[in-house]
Amino acid sequence: MKKLDDLIDVFAKLPGIGRKSAQRIAFDILEKSENEIDEMLNTIKTSHFGIKHCKICGNLSENDICEICSDDKRDKNVICVVEGVRDVIAFEKSDTYFGLYHVLGGKIDPLNGITTEDLNLKNLINRLDGSVKEVILALNPDLEGETTNLYLTKILKGKNIKVSKIASGIPIGGNIEYTDILTLGKSLEGRIDIE
Amino acid sequence: MKKLDDLIDVFAKLPGIGRKSAQRIAFDILEKSENEIDEMLNTIKTSHFGIKHCKICGNLSENDICEICSDDKRDKNVICVVEGVRDVIAFEKSDTYFGLYHVLGGKIDPLNGITTEDLNLKNLINRLDGSVKEVILALNPDLEGETTNLYLTKILKGKNIKVSKIASGIPIGGNIEYTDILTLGKSLEGRIDIE
Ligand SMILES: [Zn+2]
Ligand SMILES: [Zn+2]
Repeated sequence: MKKLDDLIDVFAKLPGIGRKSAQRIAFDILEKSENEIDEMLNTIKTSHFGIKHCKICGNLSENDICEICSDDKRDKNVICVVEGVRDVIAFEKSDTYFGLYHVLGGKIDPLNGITTEDLNLKNLINRLDGSVKEVILALNPDLEGETTNLYLTKILKGKNIKVSKIASGIPIGGNIEYTDILTLGKSLEGRIDIE
Repeated sequence: MKKLDDLIDVFAKLPGIGRKSAQRIAFDILEKSENEIDEMLNTIKTSHFGIKHCKICGNLSENDICEICSDDKRDKNVICVVEGVRDVIAFEKSDTYFGLYHVLGGKIDPLNGITTEDLNLKNLINRLDGSVKEVILALNPDLEGETTNLYLTKILKGKNIKVSKIASGIPIGGNIEYTDILTLGKSLEGRIDIE
């Protein structure tokens, strides 16, 4: 049945969902009322349309400027550079960091064709207008993360800004997003100066 | 961010998807283009609207009568009674059964308030017009399945129809949907007469 296969395909394409799970979800969908489906589709549409990237830091936001960048209580002297919005959420949950963020949207990864051009870098340079005293590099500790750290250290050199890197605590090859909040806190506390 | 939480909720409500997976899917959704989202939502809507239950057997169908019921090559003398459409798909994959099906849409389960009134039973009785020589009971082998088997055996009594039950092979407490095709085939071959 083509329509059923199409429906299963929609969910099988989502990350982390196998064919069997997608089938289970498709049958669940078919059992819902038309109202329930309309409500569900409307939520997806509204959220997709209403959530954009903060014009300053690249974090997700319902407005041009995100909640963190527009929060007067945050420490504007520190910027924590992360790969993605999920890392922002992880650090926020750890409740150990009260500065600003900058979301690169990835890391330098030549093998997968991701260069400095593809990252949210110009906005980062623009933010270093004198008020910023420290940049914390908080990329995932793998080869691409280290490459990106080296690049960022180079472009931050000579700007009279302290550059630090989050401490070990996060295992090499591990993933910030899935790290427990205690370890995340530790990695921030024990951050080491790079320059 | 309310819109993000709403989006995560949509996926967290689907069967088999935890909070963390739902979050991952939500971020994946946000990275899609508007066109991709429209296509996805349209597929869900079209499938949900276009797939109904066969008026004869209760199987899923894009038309009033499903592909199996309208297939001249199927053996119209045998009806295999199953709980749900997923069981039909499992039996069809096993390629060992060529008769018709009847989808009950559940089984008698008083503890969860499911009575004979909630099942697709009237249509089953209507189908027993003389052409049907055998009814195979293929419910999942648990307490509710056995209760339903007893009920069906009672209402099929005296109709000059052979009633059989799929053989063991499917472990007690197991699930037809997740049974491998060899075991499913065995369970059909070795079915035992009830009456
Ligand atoms: Zn921001
Ligand atoms: Zn049918």
